[in-house]
Amino acid sequence: MGKTLFLREFIREGEPFAYSLHRAMAAARREGASRLAADGGTYTLDAVFCDERYLAYSNHNFNGPKRIGALIEDMTDFELDFGGATLISEGVLTPIAVLRSRGIRVRNVTLRNPHTDFLQVRVVAHGEGYIDTLPMHGLDCFELRDGRLYSKHRGLLGFMYTNIEFNGESGAIEDGTADHTLGADPATELTYEMTGAGLLRIRGGKRQPPLGNILVFNAARRFGAGVFCEESENLFFENVTIHSCFGMGLLAQLCRNISLDGFSTRRHGDQYYTANADATHFVNCEGLIRVENCHFEGQLDDALNIHGMYTRILRAEGQELLVREMHEESRLIRIFHPGDRIAALHTDTLLPYAERTVREVEYVNADIVRLVLDEPVGKIAAGDDLEVVSCVADLIFAHNTVENNRARGMLIAARGRVLIEDCYFHVGGASVLFESDGRYWFESGGTQDVTVRRCRFDRCKHAGWGAAIIACQPRERTEEGRYYHQSITVENNEFTDSCGMLAHLDNVAAVRFTGNRIRGGLPPAVHLSHVGSAVLQEGVAVTEVP
Amino acid sequence: MGKTLFLREFIREGEPFAYSLHRAMAAARREGASRLAADGGTYTLDAVFCDERYLAYSNHNFNGPKRIGALIEDMTDFELDFGGATLISEGVLTPIAVLRSRGIRVRNVTLRNPHTDFLQVRVVAHGEGYIDTLPMHGLDCFELRDGRLYSKHRGLLGFMYTNIEFNGESGAIEDGTADHTLGADPATELTYEMTGAGLLRIRGGKRQPPLGNILVFNAARRFGAGVFCEESENLFFENVTIHSCFGMGLLAQLCRNISLDGFSTRRHGDQYYTANADATHFVNCEGLIRVENCHFEGQLDDALNIHGMYTRILRAEGQELLVREMHEESRLIRIFHPGDRIAALHTDTLLPYAERTVREVEYVNADIVRLVLDEPVGKIAAGDDLEVVSCVADLIFAHNTVENNRARGMLIAARGRVLIEDCYFHVGGASVLFESDGRYWFESGGTQDVTVRRCRFDRCKHAGWGAAIIACQPRERTEEGRYYHQSITVENNEFTDSCGMLAHLDNVAAVRFTGNRIRGGLPPAVHLSHVGSAVLQEGVAVTEVP
Repeated sequence: MGKTLFLREFIREGEPFAYSLHRAMAAARREGASRLAADGGTYTLDAVFCDERYLAYSNHNFNGPKRIGALIEDMTDFELDFGGATLISEGVLTPIAVLRSRGIRVRNVTLRNPHTDFLQVRVVAHGEGYIDTLPMHGLDCFELRDGRLYSKHRGLLGFMYTNIEFNGESGAIEDGTADHTLGADPATELTYEMTGAGLLRIRGGKRQPPLGNILVFNAARRFGAGVFCEESENLFFENVTIHSCFGMGLLAQLCRNISLDGFSTRRHGDQYYTANADATHFVNCEGLIRVENCHFEGQLDDALNIHGMYTRILRAEGQELLVREMHEESRLIRIFHPGDRIAALHTDTLLPYAERTVREVEYVNADIVRLVLDEPVGKIAAGDDLEVVSCVADLIFAHNTVENNRARGMLIAARGRVLIEDCYFHVGGASVLFESDGRYWFESGGTQDVTVRRCRFDRCKHAGWGAAIIACQPRERTEEGRYYHQSITVENNEFTDSCGMLAHLDNVAAVRFTGNRIRGGLPPAVHLSHVGSAVLQEGVAVTEVP
Repeated sequence: MGKTLFLREFIREGEPFAYSLHRAMAAARREGASRLAADGGTYTLDAVFCDERYLAYSNHNFNGPKRIGALIEDMTDFELDFGGATLISEGVLTPIAVLRSRGIRVRNVTLRNPHTDFLQVRVVAHGEGYIDTLPMHGLDCFELRDGRLYSKHRGLLGFMYTNIEFNGESGAIEDGTADHTLGADPATELTYEMTGAGLLRIRGGKRQPPLGNILVFNAARRFGAGVFCEESENLFFENVTIHSCFGMGLLAQLCRNISLDGFSTRRHGDQYYTANADATHFVNCEGLIRVENCHFEGQLDDALNIHGMYTRILRAEGQELLVREMHEESRLIRIFHPGDRIAALHTDTLLPYAERTVREVEYVNADIVRLVLDEPVGKIAAGDDLEVVSCVADLIFAHNTVENNRARGMLIAARGRVLIEDCYFHVGGASVLFESDGRYWFESGGTQDVTVRRCRFDRCKHAGWGAAIIACQPRERTEEGRYYHQSITVENNEFTDSCGMLAHLDNVAAVRFTGNRIRGGLPPAVHLSHVGSAVLQEGVAVTEVP
């Protein structure tokens, strides 16, 4: 065990805390400290004084300079223990980032950003063609212009992307609602005005939400994240609470072995939303991802999303491929490395038809990569997609609670063993969605071995956002005897007061749906299509399409 | 003389030209070629296939990833001769960039970008409370929304920043007009609608421009530049024509010795505007800047701007300064280096009161720099400004034409010898403006020795944008016997049909205004304030304020 530094020794009267933290982290790197410890307390992280790195965050909209609070960079075997401190972000920043490091432990910290581009209002009156609402935290981040509402930040105007609705009493997503809960586009169909009484009057809706309900308007801009990790391994996050942040709670890309224990998105005060996007998100990660004892609520997207990235082949000639990164929001994540095994696949089936090994990689820019292969391209053809198949992650998601968030519970596209067990879900959309596609989001890929067991799915899938509680995104075309997913087992779970559509399993070699306990709700059903073999419990209606 | 490569040998059937150029430049670097030659022709530079670097462009709004056509990077003694080729940009990019290179020559090329966030319309009818206009190049880059006009690009909405107006016959800025020529803010006061006849009807103006006049609406977004140079020296640009580009025609920062010979902004077809901002712009450059035989027209800002950068002292303690970069658009230009001589100055006088040498520099981020000095800070105080006074550039601006552009002719804030001679100016605003300030733009600094001679100022300063044809920006406070500028000489020029206010010279140690020929126009006058000594020709009215 090496040297421990104490944050209090870096804090100076009249100096912004962010700069003190910058000095403390610089000292820890310089002195090869194994630990930096804080004593709790509440601190303001002013973005003006934070570190800065040029970074590309997957599934966030803005690549470029990112401000970072605690910067763990090129470090090995280091623990950052905040001792229960709360860091309040002032401005756009990522409070914690881990870059090119190994053996990193971050503990005991709460993150909050009071201004993350949201507008939260309470419905207080119904009128003829309008509703009156009370802005609960002011209108600071917003601008009323010609009767429309824009979010504003750093001179960049943002359209309202969606609105969602929480029940004012239970705090859950209002039963049966998904996006656009007034039945109209909040950017182009709703109009807004301030009444003399300080209320925001909203016209143009087709539905009047119950009085007392909460509307959250969201410009969905993801300028930062809570925690960002890249090209690092053996990372441990323990007792980290995110009340609010720009973008995702934790985004890890190109990392190996990550453990989250008590890493939660939790509401603060009377604020119904937490993170600006997914609570946790893993892109082209390897090894074992453990997510345990976490509580995910109020985030504006899924609790967990794990996936790789499809790219498009533009040119195939000799031993060279010219490849294009396709997803506008996920560019310049350097997923290709010499030695990687890649597969070419058809965009409609996403089934591989050729494999090669990468010998040389040139990133021309965020769009274009040149790959030199170990062998001639052969039948690999321009227009098809490419996937890195040597990038394999196992996932254990256990003893977690997922509730009261927008969208889905989990998006699973991991190529290793996936175990989801002993969790509680109360989610408006699908709880577990096998979502990947090669034409729009370009998030890969097919799963090999998934088990969902001993979970409770409580009043799930009452709204949009998916076809069933456990659901596969169908492919446009399938091939006889070949499957996108290999094995999906759903056993010994409990479904309470459900929507009836428990599972929609599509394009799977082997399905097992057994021993699940079903209480209340609509008559239970499972839908199978293009499934190789299925073992199904009694008492559940099965519809099957070959 | 080393090896010459020929661009034609890199051009492949079916491959985007930008990628062929990328391969050619990579080969030139790899093989240490001294020349890459093209044979003329017209090529499309598709941003998707261009090189990319993270760069901070001074006075452009968006730091971050920049696409670059011809990337000259870490090269020495290299000539890029396009042989008269035209490069048409597709998307947002900088067609040519020179980074960390020495002895670079770029020749014989024309740059054009057909989509640079402008809307050009011709006034075709006057109505009751409106004018009807004909969009001359479509509305592709724009969106009509709730009766307002927004420019749109990459999902970023832009408000109309201003509009300007050209006389439909002469092609000059309409006499007496500057910005907002309809007398109303084009973003918030004018409303727009398309008529059935394909005309853009504009309401809310207080003035109806003559029929046939051209209005150019400008969202002023500067995503790129024509040519970008950084940390390079001995650069020669010859016979380069810019018809249109995002941002400035040429932006050079932290460079030494630059020569432009026949580097012009010229209109193309029926397009009245050229570059999106200044034609040429030099930030913290050193050595000799030569600009000769150039024709600058139609650009949406000045023909030339040369300046340093003031920064603000946040903390002064021991031998350390914590300094903040103040101008939102000019951050992360690394102006401080060990060995630099810096001066501290009061923000109201901009007169230096202490000098030190920089020993150590740490860039914390784009806002904050920590400087370690050679001596204790002494009386250097937080709240004051800082300037790098060892950064000195001489400027020769000769045999150039400046006409029909928005704003001013030249903005001069160079610390060396400045010679402006044998030029023609026909500019709506000031032709030569000594503009610098320490509280808003933070562009430094005071001039030492400026001579303007044998120029013709033809119908200049008929509109806004400056107080006189040759004008100094006044300081808020002056000091007895101390001057911001040292010597300004204006001699043997010709002023034809002028506005009368020939020169407004303020805060100058020694003024000379002699031998100038004045024909036509209003009675000539020169205004002096806080001037040490003045030699003035006869026949010019002089107003003087101590």
